[in-house]
Amino acid sequence: MKIITTISEMYDHSDRLREQGDRIGFVPTMGFLHEGHLSLMRKAREENHALIVSIFINPTQFGPDEDYDSYPKDLESDASLCREVGCDVLFTPGADEMYPQGTLTTVSVAGLTETLCGASRPGHFDGVTTVVSKLFNIVRPHMVYFGLKDYQQYRVISRMVQDLNMNIRVIGLPTVREEDGLAMSSRNAHLYNDERAGALTLSRSLDAAREMIREGIRDPRAIEKKVAGIIESESTNRIDYVSVVNADDLTPLSSIERRALLAMAVFLGDTRLIDNTVLEISGD
Amino acid sequence: MKIITTISEMYDHSDRLREQGDRIGFVPTMGFLHEGHLSLMRKAREENHALIVSIFINPTQFGPDEDYDSYPKDLESDASLCREVGCDVLFTPGADEMYPQGTLTTVSVAGLTETLCGASRPGHFDGVTTVVSKLFNIVRPHMVYFGLKDYQQYRVISRMVQDLNMNIRVIGLPTVREEDGLAMSSRNAHLYNDERAGALTLSRSLDAAREMIREGIRDPRAIEKKVAGIIESESTNRIDYVSVVNADDLTPLSSIERRALLAMAVFLGDTRLIDNTVLEISGD
Repeated sequence: MKIITTISEMYDHSDRLREQGDRIGFVPTMGFLHEGHLSLMRKAREENHALIVSIFINPTQFGPDEDYDSYPKDLESDASLCREVGCDVLFTPGADEMYPQGTLTTVSVAGLTETLCGASRPGHFDGVTTVVSKLFNIVRPHMVYFGLKDYQQYRVISRMVQDLNMNIRVIGLPTVREEDGLAMSSRNAHLYNDERAGALTLSRSLDAAREMIREGIRDPRAIEKKVAGIIESESTNRIDYVSVVNADDLTPLSSIERRALLAMAVFLGDTRLIDNTVLEISGD
Repeated sequence: MKIITTISEMYDHSDRLREQGDRIGFVPTMGFLHEGHLSLMRKAREENHALIVSIFINPTQFGPDEDYDSYPKDLESDASLCREVGCDVLFTPGADEMYPQGTLTTVSVAGLTETLCGASRPGHFDGVTTVVSKLFNIVRPHMVYFGLKDYQQYRVISRMVQDLNMNIRVIGLPTVREEDGLAMSSRNAHLYNDERAGALTLSRSLDAAREMIREGIRDPRAIEKKVAGIIESESTNRIDYVSVVNADDLTPLSSIERRALLAMAVFLGDTRLIDNTVLEISGD
């Protein structure tokens, strides 16, 4: 596995791969890799000639009061996980390499970013779409892989790729969970014991919502209320949002007719976790 | 010369060129080609294996009261000019091909776009940078060519390419003028006779400004005043702006020390023309 830290070397490497007709699969990450990332990498490994993984903790997608400085890091362990999965290139540029003169340019996606995490983290998605555009331009992948735990991010990036005619296939893969249901996240490392226990209410509340759908309940507000109640039953938890929205355009729903997204963000102490599920009505 | 109208065919064509190691030169235009465009195309022809020209009148860079509907068109003449210059591909997508679902995504460059034409045409540069991003993603050029008559556009696009790590060289080439000094522009076709005569004051005022610099005048306001006086001496002319700014970041200047941009936009009837010159102090 090659470790590349400069943009110019990454350009050259990708140009060579493309000139020899290789299909490039790309998994952009912020590191502290877990089974969720690894599932993306394994899929990308299967489906492409070359697998490129990036690790870059992007400062511009963190708000001033967010956890940029404390975001967990372990480059050595990350590199060995990448090697095990059969990654060809690990791209780990520094912030000076990515933003040598800051940035005047922003890529933003309207609509999809105004709700859910976009509403509680102003500027977050602009930071994401801008850095992902940069990474796509540097790595020049054919296929890119994102986890559906960040469902809104997946939708936003898919739309950006369509709108800007990036010739890239965006693949979203299912959330990977711990045995007890907790969605894998680098931020889980920050949870204290009682918070770790409280965090289980997130996945449990998703189960409860799916159960309500099976029982025939179609009222988004009733589901939100039930879910919020389960989460708030633990004193460690403070809800940022719990919302049932249209699963395609993330707009508000007054009734669940086919596919709805139930998404949530919850603070456990200083740690903010997100989780979601798509509620599908099976057409009989 | 191949005429391509679909994005998917353009992707395939550019992929093939890149796989065989060809360098792609690209000249994006809105058509109604004149000697200014042809100078870009000839340079691109010289410096690259393949020359791709696009013609697309981009609706999103026109304001609601601007001349999108009346923008001059002559695809047949344009195609034969492209052929004469030795263009390999003329890419002419329709608006439905470029914006099949509108666009939620915007690429914008802060700072550089807030002054000059950006101040009088709100949203214009967002439209430009977004469509140019799309065209760059579709055509995948190595080198792109823009005319310095649109000096601000050249600076904005150069900055976007840097910030987003597009691996593209942006070349700016000098304004081409009629014998009497009028800067070539597709919009000149709209000028009535008296307006055509009034339009000559633009280039004449640039000459006068350069003369003031030679005489040792360094006060931007004095130059703007002189220039405005020359332009307003013709009753056909209505000034949109006349500004002397820093030639690199387009910020206001209180004194001209090395390189300043003198830029102007003037309405002649319904036709808005722009012109500019870089005022350079030769260091003796």
